[in-house]
Amino acid sequence: MEKTLMVLDKVNSPQDLKNLSAEEMIRLSEEIRELIMKKVNTTGGHLGPNLGIVEATIALHYVFNTPEDKIVFDVSHQCYPHKILTGRKEGFTDPDKYLKYTGYTAPEESEYDLFKVGHTSTSVSLAVGLAKARDLRGGRENVIALIGDGSLSGGEAFEGLDNAAVLGSNIIVVVNDNDMSIAENEGGLYANLKLLRNTNGQAECNFFKALGFDYHYVDNGNDVKSLISTFNRVKDSDHPVLVHIRTIKGKGYAPAETDKEHYHWIVPGELDKDYSPAVSQEESYESITTDYLLKKLKQDNSIIAISPATPGVSGFTKEFREKMGKNYTDVGIAEQHAVAFASGLAKNGAKPVLAIMSSFVQRAYDQLSQDLALNNNPATILVFWGGITGADATHLTKYDIPLISNIPNIVYLAPVNKEEYLAMLDWATEQKDYSVVIRVPMCQMVSTGEKDTTDYSILNKYQVVESGSEVAILGLGNFFWLGQKIKTLLKERLGISATLINPRYITGIDIDLMESLKSNHRLIVTLEDGVLEGGFGEKIASYFGDSDLKVLNFGARKEFTDRISLDELYNRYHLNPEQILADIKQNL
Amino acid sequence: MEKTLMVLDKVNSPQDLKNLSAEEMIRLSEEIRELIMKKVNTTGGHLGPNLGIVEATIALHYVFNTPEDKIVFDVSHQCYPHKILTGRKEGFTDPDKYLKYTGYTAPEESEYDLFKVGHTSTSVSLAVGLAKARDLRGGRENVIALIGDGSLSGGEAFEGLDNAAVLGSNIIVVVNDNDMSIAENEGGLYANLKLLRNTNGQAECNFFKALGFDYHYVDNGNDVKSLISTFNRVKDSDHPVLVHIRTIKGKGYAPAETDKEHYHWIVPGELDKDYSPAVSQEESYESITTDYLLKKLKQDNSIIAISPATPGVSGFTKEFREKMGKNYTDVGIAEQHAVAFASGLAKNGAKPVLAIMSSFVQRAYDQLSQDLALNNNPATILVFWGGITGADATHLTKYDIPLISNIPNIVYLAPVNKEEYLAMLDWATEQKDYSVVIRVPMCQMVSTGEKDTTDYSILNKYQVVESGSEVAILGLGNFFWLGQKIKTLLKERLGISATLINPRYITGIDIDLMESLKSNHRLIVTLEDGVLEGGFGEKIASYFGDSDLKVLNFGARKEFTDRISLDELYNRYHLNPEQILADIKQNL
Repeated sequence: MEKTLMVLDKVNSPQDLKNLSAEEMIRLSEEIRELIMKKVNTTGGHLGPNLGIVEATIALHYVFNTPEDKIVFDVSHQCYPHKILTGRKEGFTDPDKYLKYTGYTAPEESEYDLFKVGHTSTSVSLAVGLAKARDLRGGRENVIALIGDGSLSGGEAFEGLDNAAVLGSNIIVVVNDNDMSIAENEGGLYANLKLLRNTNGQAECNFFKALGFDYHYVDNGNDVKSLISTFNRVKDSDHPVLVHIRTIKGKGYAPAETDKEHYHWIVPGELDKDYSPAVSQEESYESITTDYLLKKLKQDNSIIAISPATPGVSGFTKEFREKMGKNYTDVGIAEQHAVAFASGLAKNGAKPVLAIMSSFVQRAYDQLSQDLALNNNPATILVFWGGITGADATHLTKYDIPLISNIPNIVYLAPVNKEEYLAMLDWATEQKDYSVVIRVPMCQMVSTGEKDTTDYSILNKYQVVESGSEVAILGLGNFFWLGQKIKTLLKERLGISATLINPRYITGIDIDLMESLKSNHRLIVTLEDGVLEGGFGEKIASYFGDSDLKVLNFGARKEFTDRISLDELYNRYHLNPEQILADIKQNL
Repeated sequence: MEKTLMVLDKVNSPQDLKNLSAEEMIRLSEEIRELIMKKVNTTGGHLGPNLGIVEATIALHYVFNTPEDKIVFDVSHQCYPHKILTGRKEGFTDPDKYLKYTGYTAPEESEYDLFKVGHTSTSVSLAVGLAKARDLRGGRENVIALIGDGSLSGGEAFEGLDNAAVLGSNIIVVVNDNDMSIAENEGGLYANLKLLRNTNGQAECNFFKALGFDYHYVDNGNDVKSLISTFNRVKDSDHPVLVHIRTIKGKGYAPAETDKEHYHWIVPGELDKDYSPAVSQEESYESITTDYLLKKLKQDNSIIAISPATPGVSGFTKEFREKMGKNYTDVGIAEQHAVAFASGLAKNGAKPVLAIMSSFVQRAYDQLSQDLALNNNPATILVFWGGITGADATHLTKYDIPLISNIPNIVYLAPVNKEEYLAMLDWATEQKDYSVVIRVPMCQMVSTGEKDTTDYSILNKYQVVESGSEVAILGLGNFFWLGQKIKTLLKERLGISATLINPRYITGIDIDLMESLKSNHRLIVTLEDGVLEGGFGEKIASYFGDSDLKVLNFGARKEFTDRISLDELYNRYHLNPEQILADIKQNL
């Protein structure tokens, strides 16, 4: 492909699409695909979803008058073609600018992006809001929500559809049906989508029609012409319309068309001919989790692993899922259901273990509180990836401590090594008294080599790792290593033998221990890998509020950060050992 | 009705139903209705939902072998007939025991109750969990979820149905369709339910069939015989079944059949012949809210009030709703959508004001964080009834401060009087920089008579109501009066002129003011009407952790309380003025 012959050279905004021939649009699709593959193979990112949506994106921008007409992308992990067409192609053509734009829609980048999103199932609701505001002011623009079939399993999407259908004015929901979530789709709805695909949209039993939508079907959703024709038909509709398009996830790249789950998101270099995946034989918190569950299953058929459509987060590989068989359930993107389901399982004698990413556990707060904790059912929830990261603002994982630890009844545990984690996991699944959540460490696995024989039913008993005086350091979970480091520095620099504590329990205070510290300590230092507001340290500060001891809380600030490096964040939050030491010195 | 002739005398457990004739079951229905009306008219409670479900409850317990067969009640506000039939009729026949049993299912009361529930849309998910656990152990019992049509608009119900449909084994979902939520149903789904009712369940376009259920319809859901016949047909089904029954909300009591919204829940005495509702002409926080919105609408068509199916919570009466017209939206029981919808509205230039009860705002945490706060869209959310109460464990309202105030970007305000509230409300709807939540005071309205001219765009500026020394009292929102009281007591008893502060902002610390307190104060006292863990006071304690000032935090403990009187709770939490004074004295 010679640069001078590229159709894309002529396209700097959606307006430029209007002058292209059908033939040119097909070439443009190919060019966009090539750019996406090249860029994603360099930086890593969502591959399959973007390859599948190229033609639909071109057709949408061709037919509709964006940005006046408004497109809301669900999850927005499929917005790369949209970014290329809306003035940001340099982020894909110029390797120096590969990281200039985020992988999600971002209003600060472009007026063509309406919302900053990254969680699923939100687009229809957001679009209904846009449309209703338009109606109140008497506007005429089209409002379009583009949502994948996988996202339809999330309750918020249903709530949005149910309301969109009775809006009484223009809203166009485009369902991008590639017959996949990240992994396979799960749920009764998907049989209906299949029926609709198999009948060219003609089946009378139609989920979308049942909700009241004027329904349209495009069988070849990777054919620009068909798409343009249908979008033209529904443009300026005066009532709610749903366009169901069948696309191919990974379209144009054979391996991605074949193994759709694997190529949903790729790491740098993965498309290279000589790429060979780094197969780690080392143990990780993920591998010891799946090993534990598989071993357990051999003795106990009541164990059941659950994932809300994100099995990769917890190392629930295809192989693991197959081995678990009927003792594994992927509930689809349905975190609320996942938690209530786990509660029901536990109530009826099973031992559910729900694995969920920190950023997504917040989609089920009410279920954690009402369906689970209020009923005190002994389900086990594993929160993965909890901690401060340099992630996108949509996928921060520093809020799970305030979220979970302020719910009554729940026991939220923070292990610091392999043996402790396994002991807690075993206790959690075997006991019958509490709903237990474990914050699986997000760091290189540490092993003590010694079996942990702690009785975790004695709640809120912190572990005193080393007894000392003057300063007591509470290093919670991921940040226990930081506590060790501070202890060493205090000894080296100030000659202080600090007390080092592994709290283990996020949800309670070890009152006996805290009281005992008063006799020979002047300062308590708390370290937590999460946001300070509402977290662990503040409870310790409150506890010591009526004493003469001083308390310093270290953790993240309450803010949305967007792809800020961990180094910079640690610096900003005073989490570097030298900064912490300086703060301690000031308070001695 | 003479006592000796009652059929109910023969019924002490579901087993006793099996010996009744059809005729006796009809009489039993009437007896149960009468008991419910009498009891609810004495204690207050849910009337319409219980009157409508009498026959279905009898039929369920007649056909199924409870408690081995398991019935999960959605919301469970319709469980009165169930309680009467499962060994708890004394709670309805004996006025002295009217308060012995809760108005919701409660496992601690009876093995016939599976879960403690009170929030909507959870039953199907919980039942799927029970059923899956049964399958893992090779059990054979039936699992039944009983869910109202209103609850179907909640996303969790959809997630549950979507998963129930692919369970591959026995689960029976009974949809109790009385064509009402608390208020009218809203959403596209309801047109489909209507179509199904109008076609005797025969319409091909069928929401439940589209999800994959084996669908059955009972047109007269208040006819025990029809119900028994259909339940017998689906009993022991080896696959997921849905039974759609049409019932009459308020059945058997004409006024309740006519005004279904009003009689959803009644106050004591409401069924008396000489009952006349106490029509308050006094202003309340509800009335000044609706007055504000109606007045605003006259000048500004972009204002829009939103309720997630609970208009009564915020005083959104029928009259108000009619006056607002298209500038009012009830989204149905769909809190997630409500928040995202508000964000979309704000993004496109409208001024949304979403009114929601504290206990239900927690159903939309992820939407508050991702759909709203991350996008910084200027929606206004009014949280009603936030504070410590003697309510059922399912409807506690003390968690909204930790829930909301630890989300970045959101400005969470706590007004203490009429003028402050109105000034905040006006600022919130007019500004364009923040997502604003206001905790509407839950107490007798206080008016200063003076317009509040504060510029609320200067964030986190607390109001110093009286300047003093030694002790500084931060009386947040509802508990400002308590702060005033403590100040008076400190003067009277200890001769201390304390500083009294109205923080106004829950989401930030007034650092300048806090620093200034250090010079002439020894103790900071925080008072908040909510749970301490993760709340406001702990942040103040953390702030002063490195200083010599002591901090005492007063508020509720993290625990689920169930119908414990406010007096007892205040006592337990050291919230009585004398207790607070004693605690302060100890720390001076």
